Amino acid sequence: MPAPLAGGVSGPDALGELLGTVLASLAAGARDRGGPLPPGGPPAVDAAVRRALAADPLPARGVGAHEALADLTRVLAYGTADPADPACAGHLHCPPLAVAVAADLAASALNPSLDSWDQAPAATALETEVVAALAAAAGFVPGLAAGTVTTGGTESNLLGLLLARDRGGPSAGRHRILCSDAAHFSVRRSAALLGMGDDAVVPVATGADHRVDPGALDAVCRRVLAANDRPTAIVATAGTTDLGAVDPLAACADVAREHGVWLHVDAAYGGGALFSDRLAPLLHGIGRADSIGLDLHKLGWQPVAAGVFLVRDRALFAPLAQRAKYLNPADDEQAGLPSLLGFSPRTTRRADVFKIAVTLRALGRDGLGALVDRCHALARYAAERIDRDPGPGALELTAEPVLTSVVFRYVPHPHPGEPVGRHADLVNAELRRRLLTSGRAVVGRTEVGTGPGSVRLKLTLLNPYAGERDVDAVLRAVVEAGRAVERDL
Amino acid sequence: MPAPLAGGVSGPDALGELLGTVLASLAAGARDRGGPLPPGGPPAVDAAVRRALAADPLPARGVGAHEALADLTRVLAYGTADPADPACAGHLHCPPLAVAVAADLAASALNPSLDSWDQAPAATALETEVVAALAAAAGFVPGLAAGTVTTGGTESNLLGLLLARDRGGPSAGRHRILCSDAAHFSVRRSAALLGMGDDAVVPVATGADHRVDPGALDAVCRRVLAANDRPTAIVATAGTTDLGAVDPLAACADVAREHGVWLHVDAAYGGGALFSDRLAPLLHGIGRADSIGLDLHKLGWQPVAAGVFLVRDRALFAPLAQRAKYLNPADDEQAGLPSLLGFSPRTTRRADVFKIAVTLRALGRDGLGALVDRCHALARYAAERIDRDPGPGALELTAEPVLTSVVFRYVPHPHPGEPVGRHADLVNAELRRRLLTSGRAVVGRTEVGTGPGSVRLKLTLLNPYAGERDVDAVLRAVVEAGRAVERDL
Repeated sequence: MPAPLAGGVSGPDALGELLGTVLASLAAGARDRGGPLPPGGPPAVDAAVRRALAADPLPARGVGAHEALADLTRVLAYGTADPADPACAGHLHCPPLAVAVAADLAASALNPSLDSWDQAPAATALETEVVAALAAAAGFVPGLAAGTVTTGGTESNLLGLLLARDRGGPSAGRHRILCSDAAHFSVRRSAALLGMGDDAVVPVATGADHRVDPGALDAVCRRVLAANDRPTAIVATAGTTDLGAVDPLAACADVAREHGVWLHVDAAYGGGALFSDRLAPLLHGIGRADSIGLDLHKLGWQPVAAGVFLVRDRALFAPLAQRAKYLNPADDEQAGLPSLLGFSPRTTRRADVFKIAVTLRALGRDGLGALVDRCHALARYAAERIDRDPGPGALELTAEPVLTSVVFRYVPHPHPGEPVGRHADLVNAELRRRLLTSGRAVVGRTEVGTGPGSVRLKLTLLNPYAGERDVDAVLRAVVEAGRAVERDL
Repeated sequence: MPAPLAGGVSGPDALGELLGTVLASLAAGARDRGGPLPPGGPPAVDAAVRRALAADPLPARGVGAHEALADLTRVLAYGTADPADPACAGHLHCPPLAVAVAADLAASALNPSLDSWDQAPAATALETEVVAALAAAAGFVPGLAAGTVTTGGTESNLLGLLLARDRGGPSAGRHRILCSDAAHFSVRRSAALLGMGDDAVVPVATGADHRVDPGALDAVCRRVLAANDRPTAIVATAGTTDLGAVDPLAACADVAREHGVWLHVDAAYGGGALFSDRLAPLLHGIGRADSIGLDLHKLGWQPVAAGVFLVRDRALFAPLAQRAKYLNPADDEQAGLPSLLGFSPRTTRRADVFKIAVTLRALGRDGLGALVDRCHALARYAAERIDRDPGPGALELTAEPVLTSVVFRYVPHPHPGEPVGRHADLVNAELRRRLLTSGRAVVGRTEVGTGPGSVRLKLTLLNPYAGERDVDAVLRAVVEAGRAVERDL
């Protein structure tokens, strides 16, 4: 067998033979990198990748499994921004647990596909059980709720809006989606994809705490109805991407109920609070939603993808119902063969549930909660450090952390002839790029508000094994880079 | 560290420690199963899964990594329909290569996410290079073409229709999508998702060879335009799910060009013919499409997901362009940080390209082509065997195989008081379920045409290491099951 298979009786041996090469190359690549990401920026990385491909990604003749694995794994590891390095804290991009990654290998090797039972007997049962447990944890009614594993919050948001669009609603007219301005951009993108038009999303004012104002939400809802438009869905965010702000979910549910509007809760980030006794109260009211999205590849330490979309009542999946002659003929379903085809917009679908199932069972709610709490504590520590000595040449905190992210900026000294806000934006954007291209740290960057002076830096702390000294080191690197940029401008 | 990470310097050791448990449990589960799928049907599998979960998928306290991995991997392997078993031949559900699965471990461990460069420096470069090579192989102009890795043909079809919908077009009016009746159901599903309405798909007649008739396609196009509707896209299929029929792509391109209509080629199945000198001529004209989808988790032996969506001209991605303050601010792009955000409808996105890159390099085009040819030869052998002794109590071939699937049925003896077609349908449906629930074989089932007598069985042969004796054994099992069902009715 020139290229052995991963499955069957001999699959584990064939795999075992290759995994040593992968592990050794991962280690070698990490040494090559020598930090959170490789120095040199895109030119250095692009050149290394082209070298590893010998400038021919699809050669006529192959080089063999070991050589291809060794060269490409090593360059992937060298050229990675490794979230397991404490100085890599830019995004909601978690360092996956070894147990989850090991489990994912089994899903790859057996390759179950969830679009029909006869491609995934055990995985079909496993997804059903795991999704039900997560739905119960979110406060949905067991036995009534259902859900599916998704590619992430974006697919979950799309699904929520799709089901809301197609269930009929309280009025006719143009679709209107109500959410705060800090809602994820995928809400707007999904509305456009679903053909609701680019202007379907109606922003709702937030308070000083960046949470949606329920009074304003109610007023917008009434305005939409008065204009004979259709308030198709309210999207509440449980954990905005930057500040981690959690909309008041119970109050949003009140407004949704009063007007008969679908409530989708985007808990892609904040859903992890379900595991933590300390943070769970933030999600009070989440169980009153119609649909919920949560991402276990954020506060759940799974490799991508591990999104979960939950629906209050399985009957609400009706718009996705699909009969395919070759996948779920009616007589097969009557004969007892289950089908998950109508729970997902995808057809072929990897068993991403498997790593989730193994992780939940290995760590339990308490174990995951401890990791969530640890990252939250680290964010609080970072905020405290940032706030300690303000002033030019130092850092300024933008808001108290809610979950595990901290938004802040470097405050430059006044620059002759340059407006203060614009100068601060330039310095912060440039210092972040210098940290990236020098390979020293991955710090996030965003904007809070609009116009000059809105650029901010961000630490998204998802590494539960990072320490306070690691946070100190990153903050020190930011200050040093800021001062260096100031010198050079 | 109670639950170690997969990345960082110590990640490979932590992983190595767990992978032994995974491999041993994969082997144990395969022994438990003892065939292509477990006997007993859904009740047996569901009970085993619930037992392995101890009826509690989210326990308060975890059981630890080794126990969770051992129990759940073993039950997943036991309860799998293993495409590496030659008697598992129901679907476009390939047995993945060990080299691809081993590579996928690296993507899991490092967890790059392709929504920003600073989450995936090397993976960004790798996807760009690999997609460009595949675009060139399909006949697109190098440097001009672009693409993205997708979750599969369904997402690729959605993308093709989305770009077609949003680019403007030859006329206003209702969106109309033109394709043959044998086009994949995801075309209709995508049109509905995109808000084009349930009736947007206009079926075009096929000839006796199940390929779209270019004359009919041209006539439908003219009819749509005459009705002041908009022929938004033509979807040509290169390899229908059941018969493997390949529409005449060059003729479809002629019609599309004449009327200024977007041509999307769904080559999810047939795209693998690009690797085979023998079968590549079937795809003549594919390089004249506007967009192409192909799935390397079909004739490419990748674990799911490994879809690829290609576009003739990168400018056609414009409708997906996305600026996110925290992912691709304009000044970062100007400073040279690449962004793939505007090439995909997803945000967080796993580096599924990595396993593809390793496989292409390990096997080369010739190596993959040999696997394609082997499966094609096996399908031709199966067709010959099926055709050998016709008549009641034996098998009947529906059509000559084109790619690697064979559609046929068991012909029962006349049954008193039962119409012939209906009786044949009942027997074939039931015999397939018996093969499934006895754990003996996974045979596909579909319908060719509609009404009584349309039910067919199908072998989708994707295991290049299966032999002719394996095919003989599956066909013998079908005949035996058919005769047993006849006895019992």
